[in-house]
Amino acid sequence: MKIVQNILNSRSDEDGNFFLVLKKILGFNPKHLDIYRKAFTHRSANRKDAQGNPVNYERLEFLGDTMLSTIISYHLYKEVPSGDEGYLTKMRSKIVSREHLNELGKDLNLIAYINSKISKDSFGDNIHGNLFEALLGAIYLDRGYKYCERFVYRKVIEPYVDIERLEGKIISYKSFVIEWCQKEKKTFRYEVYEDSGNESLKHFSVKLFIDGNVISKGRATSKKKAEEQASKRAYYALQDKMG
Amino acid sequence: MKIVQNILNSRSDEDGNFFLVLKKILGFNPKHLDIYRKAFTHRSANRKDAQGNPVNYERLEFLGDTMLSTIISYHLYKEVPSGDEGYLTKMRSKIVSREHLNELGKDLNLIAYINSKISKDSFGDNIHGNLFEALLGAIYLDRGYKYCERFVYRKVIEPYVDIERLEGKIISYKSFVIEWCQKEKKTFRYEVYEDSGNESLKHFSVKLFIDGNVISKGRATSKKKAEEQASKRAYYALQDKMG
Repeated sequence: MKIVQNILNSRSDEDGNFFLVLKKILGFNPKHLDIYRKAFTHRSANRKDAQGNPVNYERLEFLGDTMLSTIISYHLYKEVPSGDEGYLTKMRSKIVSREHLNELGKDLNLIAYINSKISKDSFGDNIHGNLFEALLGAIYLDRGYKYCERFVYRKVIEPYVDIERLEGKIISYKSFVIEWCQKEKKTFRYEVYEDSGNESLKHFSVKLFIDGNVISKGRATSKKKAEEQASKRAYYALQDKMG
Repeated sequence: MKIVQNILNSRSDEDGNFFLVLKKILGFNPKHLDIYRKAFTHRSANRKDAQGNPVNYERLEFLGDTMLSTIISYHLYKEVPSGDEGYLTKMRSKIVSREHLNELGKDLNLIAYINSKISKDSFGDNIHGNLFEALLGAIYLDRGYKYCERFVYRKVIEPYVDIERLEGKIISYKSFVIEWCQKEKKTFRYEVYEDSGNESLKHFSVKLFIDGNVISKGRATSKKKAEEQASKRAYYALQDKMG
């Protein structure tokens, strides 16, 4: 806290705000704000550096794309010792799919911080994934490979990468939970409430009760996703019983 | 040297030999010989682990391929600040081309250490690139990202990656040197001699003389490559004059 305060004191208000926004997204202290500023700059802003080179997120996106691919590859290598090269390649492309990246960028609400001459409403869906990749590139340049890897674990792998689900063994954790409760003659209910917190994006929080006890919680940008997250957590919490 | 001796003493002769071979290829001490053994094991050897999973280099190749791509991407990002995403992608695919990887594996003579039921002569050219990628995967698992990056710099980027040449601005350094000498009215000659050293692969060493003075040296697995390497070094040594 003291370090943050010192950094804030030595910067302008604008820098201080950006620092806090980043710290919240990243989960650690960013060192070089300029790199992150680039990661949020769209080409329409027409920024140039002293040498006349365009300053926008596109080059960082190139870097972040390959970083993500490498980190996911290593995770799959470790987690699936029985998977051959073809299997690992197929699983990786599911995880780093355009659709999935867009979802990740959207969940972090990265578009809120974009510097662009174009209105936010007129971007297509890919802007979310592009900003997410650019952010990974920026993290690598700012803090190196390990920080980038940790961020990917926290924001991509832990919440979303589920090998059983990717393999199609489990399509929906919610239906899995429901079937299990019916088979075991247990009652269940999902208690959902809208919650915006301090964020500009609306979030949904959900508690999953089984036989009247809270088994797990979920929080996401849609009711469906929050329920699925709570169900997934319940699945792991109860794995022995459900096995 | 003392450390190496201790490691050697504590291992079998076979391990000791493999350790020394690896140390020479890698330029550092390998820690987990098993990982490297896997990197040299072809599927035809039919090795399996205790769980029945196949043990061969194919999964390591998957890992090495993405590591190489990431390390080259970062190098290009740094070195070509004016290159946009499309340019960086194009340059990367030139550097990590199948042909180039095969050359790298061949130069390190990796096939000499392969464990396979198939005769070495019956492999196609791709075996060289596959072994090179698997070796990168093994380095990452054994010593982490930084060691892998340093190895790629020493074995790929420093000797082979030349952005001006990849851009097609310079096709051959040898013809560049010859033209320059003719224009500047200087004499030149390449002095080549075959040299096998301790390696099983034949090497060629070359000295480039300009006006009777040794300007640069080269060493490679063909006369042509050694001359090109010496010419490239001369190009950089004389860059101010040649500019």
